[in-house]
Amino acid sequence: MRAAIYGGPGDIAIEEVPKPTLETPTGAIIRVTHTAVCGSDLWFYRGDSDRETGSRVGHEPMGIVEETGEQVTSVEPGDRVFAPFVISCGRCEFCRRGLHTSCANGDSWGGDNGGAQGEHVRVPEADGTLVRVPDRYADDEDTLRSILPLTDVMGTGHHAAVSAGVGPGDSCVVIGDGAVGLCGVLAARRLGARRIVAVGHHDDRLAIATEFGATATVSERGDAALDRVRELTDGGVDHVMECVGAASAMEMAIELCRPGGTVGYVGVPHGVDEAGLDVFSLFSDNITLQGGVAPVRAYAEELLADVLGGTLDPSPIFTKTVDLAGVPEGYRAMDEREAIKVLVRIDGHSE
Amino acid sequence: MRAAIYGGPGDIAIEEVPKPTLETPTGAIIRVTHTAVCGSDLWFYRGDSDRETGSRVGHEPMGIVEETGEQVTSVEPGDRVFAPFVISCGRCEFCRRGLHTSCANGDSWGGDNGGAQGEHVRVPEADGTLVRVPDRYADDEDTLRSILPLTDVMGTGHHAAVSAGVGPGDSCVVIGDGAVGLCGVLAARRLGARRIVAVGHHDDRLAIATEFGATATVSERGDAALDRVRELTDGGVDHVMECVGAASAMEMAIELCRPGGTVGYVGVPHGVDEAGLDVFSLFSDNITLQGGVAPVRAYAEELLADVLGGTLDPSPIFTKTVDLAGVPEGYRAMDEREAIKVLVRIDGHSE
Repeated sequence: MRAAIYGGPGDIAIEEVPKPTLETPTGAIIRVTHTAVCGSDLWFYRGDSDRETGSRVGHEPMGIVEETGEQVTSVEPGDRVFAPFVISCGRCEFCRRGLHTSCANGDSWGGDNGGAQGEHVRVPEADGTLVRVPDRYADDEDTLRSILPLTDVMGTGHHAAVSAGVGPGDSCVVIGDGAVGLCGVLAARRLGARRIVAVGHHDDRLAIATEFGATATVSERGDAALDRVRELTDGGVDHVMECVGAASAMEMAIELCRPGGTVGYVGVPHGVDEAGLDVFSLFSDNITLQGGVAPVRAYAEELLADVLGGTLDPSPIFTKTVDLAGVPEGYRAMDEREAIKVLVRIDGHSE
Repeated sequence: MRAAIYGGPGDIAIEEVPKPTLETPTGAIIRVTHTAVCGSDLWFYRGDSDRETGSRVGHEPMGIVEETGEQVTSVEPGDRVFAPFVISCGRCEFCRRGLHTSCANGDSWGGDNGGAQGEHVRVPEADGTLVRVPDRYADDEDTLRSILPLTDVMGTGHHAAVSAGVGPGDSCVVIGDGAVGLCGVLAARRLGARRIVAVGHHDDRLAIATEFGATATVSERGDAALDRVRELTDGGVDHVMECVGAASAMEMAIELCRPGGTVGYVGVPHGVDEAGLDVFSLFSDNITLQGGVAPVRAYAEELLADVLGGTLDPSPIFTKTVDLAGVPEGYRAMDEREAIKVLVRIDGHSE
């Protein structure tokens, strides 16, 4: 089989690799049909984080079940499924409380399981990880395109909104106009927010934020951005969603959060180690810091129901589509910000 | 009138100062009868934080109303009252949501209002700040001694428990065996916690923790403390109360918090700037950081009811009593850890 392989910063290549095999009675083999390139893939691509060279990449798989272990009960060969960016058992305490990212038996894509940017993956815990798409939608390309973000960014944006405590009638600020930030806007609207201010740096992305439900957008930077948001929100909001994962964005989030409010964050907080977190502002204003790596498996069913019902559609974040051979080009396009998020049709054609 | 004055690190003296005067129709003048020395007073006493030399000190006043402004409706001259460590209006949005520490019209003790370690204070917002003690208890010395911690440490310990989400049947860890940590144990028990592990370094204080409801105490340090708490709690708890206000204590709190749990913190996080907060552990385990400077005014009524009802008594934290002239000795005793917390009988005698 063929798969995308990490060769070092800036180097993604499609190579022939061994196909994963079923090794546990709880596992399944998936033929990947759709996947995506993630903003977090750019960290190793840019050399900002370490990754073993020669490793398989991609963590947002959707495809067709090819083979299942004898203990698997929730899916069978031929089913259309998707899976979150972490593998979870579904049985342990943390999975049962909806925190699949802390699964006691958790595993990750890449390595022997294969990466989602490849023709096949093995999921060692099929029942706890895979989400089945009802047959009537299983081959509907438009619907699949809308479902695919539930593997990561839509669930992550939703986690930001949930962590920030966004509810009906609330005013909130979403920091970041990447795929997660845009999905965060969708999530905030879906949860009933009345006022949603999206903060970003790119007019084309902020246009999607508006399409997704942002009631105002702010493209200024630094203090000018703070001033503009405060002007729009009468001084700040009780619910801030930090969807960037950078020290400066976290700092802005805390600045814009009113006393007693909550900052919901879902981006790995890069640079916070060096810059330091403004704990004194959190302390003096009793601002809660809530969130973390998103347990998107916990949100899959409710979000899928809305996608299938036609009331939730994150697919506009896919502004470019490639085939497997086009994955390196997909990384380049995202790295150079030509594309917001790249959809990969493993068995399809680049567009 | 006489009042304690800060002369620089290690220097507290009793001096003759002007008596505060009533300047607003919403204010009151209180003749202070009881107050205390706070662990946070030691920061400037030890030179760890800046404070203007010549300033009046003390922020935990209890006394008798001497004079009220014409708009004051909740108290009248002769009433027994106490007040939290911040002054709040009771009318603004933040007071109404129980976040009096972020009061839009807030003020502080010291300066022209006078410090609580003095014979008189002015409270510019009497209705929003003062809590009246029912007449039948107004001169009951034992009861007053049990009420006095509601000005600060009992409300702060309660805020730690509330912020950590402690509820009936929960297991929690309380880090710190100072007055706040001990009050945190009381608060956790009051909220129904089933298992309360108190972590500290002093056997005499941990004995009070046991008296207050701790089901286990841990006096080891560093990794040995972590191991012992994990052993006692099957690996950690979902509710950790950080009652020290130091980087090392915050680090321990995060280490002992299980995935998806909450660290409730109420200590000013000293040293976190240098040591850095372990945001990556918070992130990967979805640990919520909640708390801050305690809005003790918001908790005064419910805690007072329990003190008066006989089910809550934080007074054992007062292990030494001084009169106004004895305040410098009180600072020394707390600085040298001879006393947990020092009660000051302004018009009384040192014991």
